[in-house]
Amino acid sequence: MKPQPPKGTRDYLPAQLRTRDRVIATVKEVFEGFGYAPLETPALERLDVLTGKYGDEADRLIFRILKRGKAGERGEADLGLRYDLTVPLARVMAANQDIPKPFKRYQIQPVWRAERPQRGRFREFIQCDVDCVGTASMLADAEMIAVMHETLAALGFENYRVSVNNRKILSAFMDYAAVPAELKFAAIRAMDKLDKVGKNGVEAELAASDVPEPAAGEIMGVLFDPKNSGRIDYYLNAAQAFAGDYEEGREGVSEMQKLAEYLNYFRVPDDVLSFDLHMARGLDYYTGPIYEAYVAEGGIGSVAGGGRYDRLIAQLGGPDLPATGTSFGLERITALLTAREAAAREGGPADVLVAVYDETVLKDALNVAAEIRAAGTTCEVYLEPAAKLAKQFSYADAKGIPLVVVVGPDEVARNVVQVKELASREQKEVPLAGLVSALRAILKRD
Amino acid sequence: MKPQPPKGTRDYLPAQLRTRDRVIATVKEVFEGFGYAPLETPALERLDVLTGKYGDEADRLIFRILKRGKAGERGEADLGLRYDLTVPLARVMAANQDIPKPFKRYQIQPVWRAERPQRGRFREFIQCDVDCVGTASMLADAEMIAVMHETLAALGFENYRVSVNNRKILSAFMDYAAVPAELKFAAIRAMDKLDKVGKNGVEAELAASDVPEPAAGEIMGVLFDPKNSGRIDYYLNAAQAFAGDYEEGREGVSEMQKLAEYLNYFRVPDDVLSFDLHMARGLDYYTGPIYEAYVAEGGIGSVAGGGRYDRLIAQLGGPDLPATGTSFGLERITALLTAREAAAREGGPADVLVAVYDETVLKDALNVAAEIRAAGTTCEVYLEPAAKLAKQFSYADAKGIPLVVVVGPDEVARNVVQVKELASREQKEVPLAGLVSALRAILKRD
Repeated sequence: MKPQPPKGTRDYLPAQLRTRDRVIATVKEVFEGFGYAPLETPALERLDVLTGKYGDEADRLIFRILKRGKAGERGEADLGLRYDLTVPLARVMAANQDIPKPFKRYQIQPVWRAERPQRGRFREFIQCDVDCVGTASMLADAEMIAVMHETLAALGFENYRVSVNNRKILSAFMDYAAVPAELKFAAIRAMDKLDKVGKNGVEAELAASDVPEPAAGEIMGVLFDPKNSGRIDYYLNAAQAFAGDYEEGREGVSEMQKLAEYLNYFRVPDDVLSFDLHMARGLDYYTGPIYEAYVAEGGIGSVAGGGRYDRLIAQLGGPDLPATGTSFGLERITALLTAREAAAREGGPADVLVAVYDETVLKDALNVAAEIRAAGTTCEVYLEPAAKLAKQFSYADAKGIPLVVVVGPDEVARNVVQVKELASREQKEVPLAGLVSALRAILKRD
Repeated sequence: MKPQPPKGTRDYLPAQLRTRDRVIATVKEVFEGFGYAPLETPALERLDVLTGKYGDEADRLIFRILKRGKAGERGEADLGLRYDLTVPLARVMAANQDIPKPFKRYQIQPVWRAERPQRGRFREFIQCDVDCVGTASMLADAEMIAVMHETLAALGFENYRVSVNNRKILSAFMDYAAVPAELKFAAIRAMDKLDKVGKNGVEAELAASDVPEPAAGEIMGVLFDPKNSGRIDYYLNAAQAFAGDYEEGREGVSEMQKLAEYLNYFRVPDDVLSFDLHMARGLDYYTGPIYEAYVAEGGIGSVAGGGRYDRLIAQLGGPDLPATGTSFGLERITALLTAREAAAREGGPADVLVAVYDETVLKDALNVAAEIRAAGTTCEVYLEPAAKLAKQFSYADAKGIPLVVVVGPDEVARNVVQVKELASREQKEVPLAGLVSALRAILKRD
């Protein structure tokens, strides 16, 4: 048997899961604090639900499953694996039309994509989506940005910003710059690369996308206005100046005014927010405010992003409901926090290993372990009573358990135990009566 | 679009997930307390890993996935969906041979089986396995039973028992009763049905399985010995009497003596344990102690079970390591606790809805919500500032949010809010300064 997992998939061993599970616990706490509730849908969906929703390229990336009862290796497919969390959301909204609205849900589940094997590109990965379905109010968009802010703060990031823009304003901007209709989306994509490729890069991208002069020059002029502070006042003035002549543009400006007011009420600090005319997000289904969060550390681009998509739920086969939502890059965030914690203790889940000296004192060892556990400190017992102590210490070392408690016959007779810190190799005798608090003191839990 | 999920799969809406997630949090806490660490493996496995492990019937139930890049509905399969959590465990042990042993892991993930559609039988369901790989010591089996006991206690079950037996003793019992070799497993399966079908049922099953006299009579005599107390002393005496002449039987008796001693050290109460010669568990790969847990409520049979399987990891393609483990019926346990809680509050995740009177006091409403959240009480704001209060109350009712806080212009002027309890429809005015503690008092959180 070739023991590696299939290409593009991963096993998560305990040390890797620990950080990820902590990230998930933290984000769930923030989401639920705001009244978002969990949703889970099956990995399996009917092919007619999955296909024809995001275009031919996405359709080719859907994993197809053979009909039941085909033990052979060939045959016809009727099911597929979930490709994202938005199609299932649309399906759930259609299946549960009486669900109270706005429906505020989060969903943290894996999705599968039959990508070409490639470094850092996975065929199975977890998505983490928060969405609010059923209201067109900017209050929902402001809350979404507040959720991003509170989540990143709760995860312990100190230096992050949320970039905000509006698709209606972007669209009016294209009209103002007189970009030919068929090139609009290409021009928007070119602008969106500013953070990655810089000023010259955007210029080159616009040219490569055949955006003609003077349109390209107009775009560059607005994007690189030296007075652009990224603050809301500048943003609204600029947007009003170039988009105010277009109905869509006026709507966008009015949305952003409301959004900024509400963000203020949600107490999202000004210095977290950056209003960026160039920020566009790649997907073409957004219809209003869009937002994207970046952290300074790691240099890995955005860690969360989303926007308003008022027509998508209906397009995907659900009821016609306005919606806004954001997606967190759980795997990127976990990688960042894992790197941050790498220097810190790379621990097993247990704080203490109770070593078993021999069978004669096994009962005492298990009693000690139960006491430690009862006091809320995780504690495992070495499960082979006949093993040499040296082997048990190696096991604790290999798992990264910081403390070993040895209960030998001499110790039992005197009502004490030996406590060894593996990092320093220091060993000290501790009376049984004070063991729990001594361990907590060493582990700095009190 | 047909909005229902595929046959044999389910959407989990918020109210259903809440209990399940609490069950998962509780069991994880117990597992980690004993030093078990999480493992996750991909849903996708190569077909050569999945097939040929549990026989032809299981092979037919594996969902097969078409090769990448096949956008058509027909073709060749090279991957399959995880069928259980034991094959992936064996694969991970093979891929990570330097992992510290004993390797104590738990895994809580869905598995997929292409079962015939049938009520209560699912094609996608969650398994929850705890295993200890790499030691033959009975200490590991005792710990497994202690984990079952502590888990059921932590879940709030008051009336449960763990039935314990040993496959070596069962095998020697078959030799003692002179059951023909080819009928041994059928006879064991017949005995195992005792709890379901009673004495006459077992007799009929033995006859139907062609177990001849006097073998069937010998079996019935031992099983229905009126002196059988289910206590360890009776069990060891009986086992010694019929199995003591067989080497395997003597090994089994010696294992059970150790196991009973260790269970005592682990402080598993006697009245939780039942030593049952008839209990066999259905799968044929167990090699030593086996155990199964039942709860009194609900009448749903076992909620957890497992045993020692010293040869399986190697049979499944992993290294040759002894192992013991238990599987929790997470979905059954969740169903039980859901039923138990049905009478209690069927709540939304938020404790409080802050209603938005109108735009003029929106800022104040959001401030109030932030204060409530900061104090650790979940709180959502109604996301459409123009909605009528009656609509906002209906929303809270529909979601089961127990408290609504109304912040109106008059209230803002006087630094108070209105707090309405939806169950009693009682409303009272609360000063802003004391709001957080007033809410916690109503919610009985202090």
